[in-house]
Amino acid sequence: MSAKKIIGIDLGGTTAKFAILTQEGDIQQKWSIQTNILDEGSHIVPDIIASINHHLDLYNLSAADFIGIGMGTPGSVDREKGTVVGAYNLNWKTVQPIRQQIEEGTGIPFVLDNDANVAALGERWKGAGDNNPDVIFITLGTGVGGGIIMENTLLHGVAGCAGEIGHITVDPFGFECTCGKVGCLETVSSATGVVRVARQLAEEYAGDSELKKRLDDGQDVSSKDIFELAQADDALALLVIDRVCFYLGLACGNLGNTLNPSSIVLGGGVSAAGEFLRSRVEKYFFQFTFPQVNESTVIKLAQLGNEAGVIGAASLALQLLD
Amino acid sequence: MSAKKIIGIDLGGTTAKFAILTQEGDIQQKWSIQTNILDEGSHIVPDIIASINHHLDLYNLSAADFIGIGMGTPGSVDREKGTVVGAYNLNWKTVQPIRQQIEEGTGIPFVLDNDANVAALGERWKGAGDNNPDVIFITLGTGVGGGIIMENTLLHGVAGCAGEIGHITVDPFGFECTCGKVGCLETVSSATGVVRVARQLAEEYAGDSELKKRLDDGQDVSSKDIFELAQADDALALLVIDRVCFYLGLACGNLGNTLNPSSIVLGGGVSAAGEFLRSRVEKYFFQFTFPQVNESTVIKLAQLGNEAGVIGAASLALQLLD
Repeated sequence: MSAKKIIGIDLGGTTAKFAILTQEGDIQQKWSIQTNILDEGSHIVPDIIASINHHLDLYNLSAADFIGIGMGTPGSVDREKGTVVGAYNLNWKTVQPIRQQIEEGTGIPFVLDNDANVAALGERWKGAGDNNPDVIFITLGTGVGGGIIMENTLLHGVAGCAGEIGHITVDPFGFECTCGKVGCLETVSSATGVVRVARQLAEEYAGDSELKKRLDDGQDVSSKDIFELAQADDALALLVIDRVCFYLGLACGNLGNTLNPSSIVLGGGVSAAGEFLRSRVEKYFFQFTFPQVNESTVIKLAQLGNEAGVIGAASLALQLLD
Repeated sequence: MSAKKIIGIDLGGTTAKFAILTQEGDIQQKWSIQTNILDEGSHIVPDIIASINHHLDLYNLSAADFIGIGMGTPGSVDREKGTVVGAYNLNWKTVQPIRQQIEEGTGIPFVLDNDANVAALGERWKGAGDNNPDVIFITLGTGVGGGIIMENTLLHGVAGCAGEIGHITVDPFGFECTCGKVGCLETVSSATGVVRVARQLAEEYAGDSELKKRLDDGQDVSSKDIFELAQADDALALLVIDRVCFYLGLACGNLGNTLNPSSIVLGGGVSAAGEFLRSRVEKYFFQFTFPQVNESTVIKLAQLGNEAGVIGAASLALQLLD
């Protein structure tokens, strides 16, 4: 009999991604299914169970071949009870007894955590984090999320809010955030945040700029457009990206000053801007950290892309070995 | 034979405090000696060894009665090697092989960490932290230091800088700090920071104020004076304390948003202002945290005073049991 394997699930509002991995984190199989959020999301868990059982048959595997299944999910996770509540993009408004259902449906032990935490675990284990004990992951997407791993442990905090990097206050007098307070990192460095900063700076900008022209014309402008214009030397777009990176560098700086991880890893859609983004965040990170921190904590780009979720989720199952 | 005990040492530039504790953290004996920093601090460790051996004789105890000795020290600590370097208030400029010397001199296993971390461990274990898994301690003294305990583990970071709360940037365009950057929490909320803020606000203040009068007269004004004047309703002093608490609340808020500890504990000399300080920090903490955090993370005052150091230091010795 070969060594037991682990299964990772990355559950999102559009698809659920699956992978079968070795205990060393090498992906052996992967597949995905559409997420059916109809009927208050009541099809989601049965679909996951059917898909797992189907693929185990396909690969001639059984429950006994696995240590466990780990899953990352949107919403508020109760890790002890194995439940999720308030995952609005899944239509899960009431408490969902996920662990009970999946364990009964597959016969395999099950562990879950929230999606940003799980992506952090993935990047730390097999990606930019180099499996170091202290790694912070920031995902810059529609929103801004994150996960913090210190001393080899994913931090949760007393109410599960640790790692909510998107709600670091970077401007005490800044934009209103959906969370109810003002000046959150998310308001200025998510995909929508980048556009918000562009609209603000465009108002007072008088020079020549394609970005200014498009915004004044009322055209739809995305974060991606703004990065492309900046890389083509559009003067306003460069100001916008500089401001966005100032806030990211300030937030990363304070994470560095308080936690001194070996790396802070930038992922998510906005990080597709790559080195153009990273180098500018790093410039401000250096400005906002004291010497021992900026000599030891490194700003990096995520390496795993979409696979961070399934890999990190699968790593949750390894805790069942303890 | 009764259960083995632990020894805690809190080494400072003026005194070294000692205590013998039970494994439950109850102090059974305590004493202190002057710190003799002459001759490049070369008397410090021999004095510590002599004092321990003398007191063990006095109490009819021997090395075999102890699990270990824990010590908190200024300077840069190498926990693996058991050494300290760069403790300028002790005149320790070169690497000091503390663990080797103390283990040889007493026959008792020895562990050390830096003084702010050790105070955090003490407040978390037997003070305001209520022995919860996630507690942050901030010491507001001549400087601002701190320690972060998450998931029952004191965080150190890759280069030992975790917990350097005094160097959180609270104003990207603020005062210069001794660390080389600007706008550090320490520049506006240490004892000298409070006075710095007072001088800044006094310049533009035109109303009636005893504080303004004293500053304009060139009198020596301390942080304690400013708190006393504020508590006596001096208008400028109230503005100063409000500004100081704004910065403290912002820093605590961001610690809450990213780590969500059960409590953030304020200690050190400046915290002698008690509830007058705490309630004002809390006001801004609420402003700068999102709902789930301000419902679950509590701002508290330290409870142990000077004893936090020896208690936390002693708790280090418990890790020798693992």
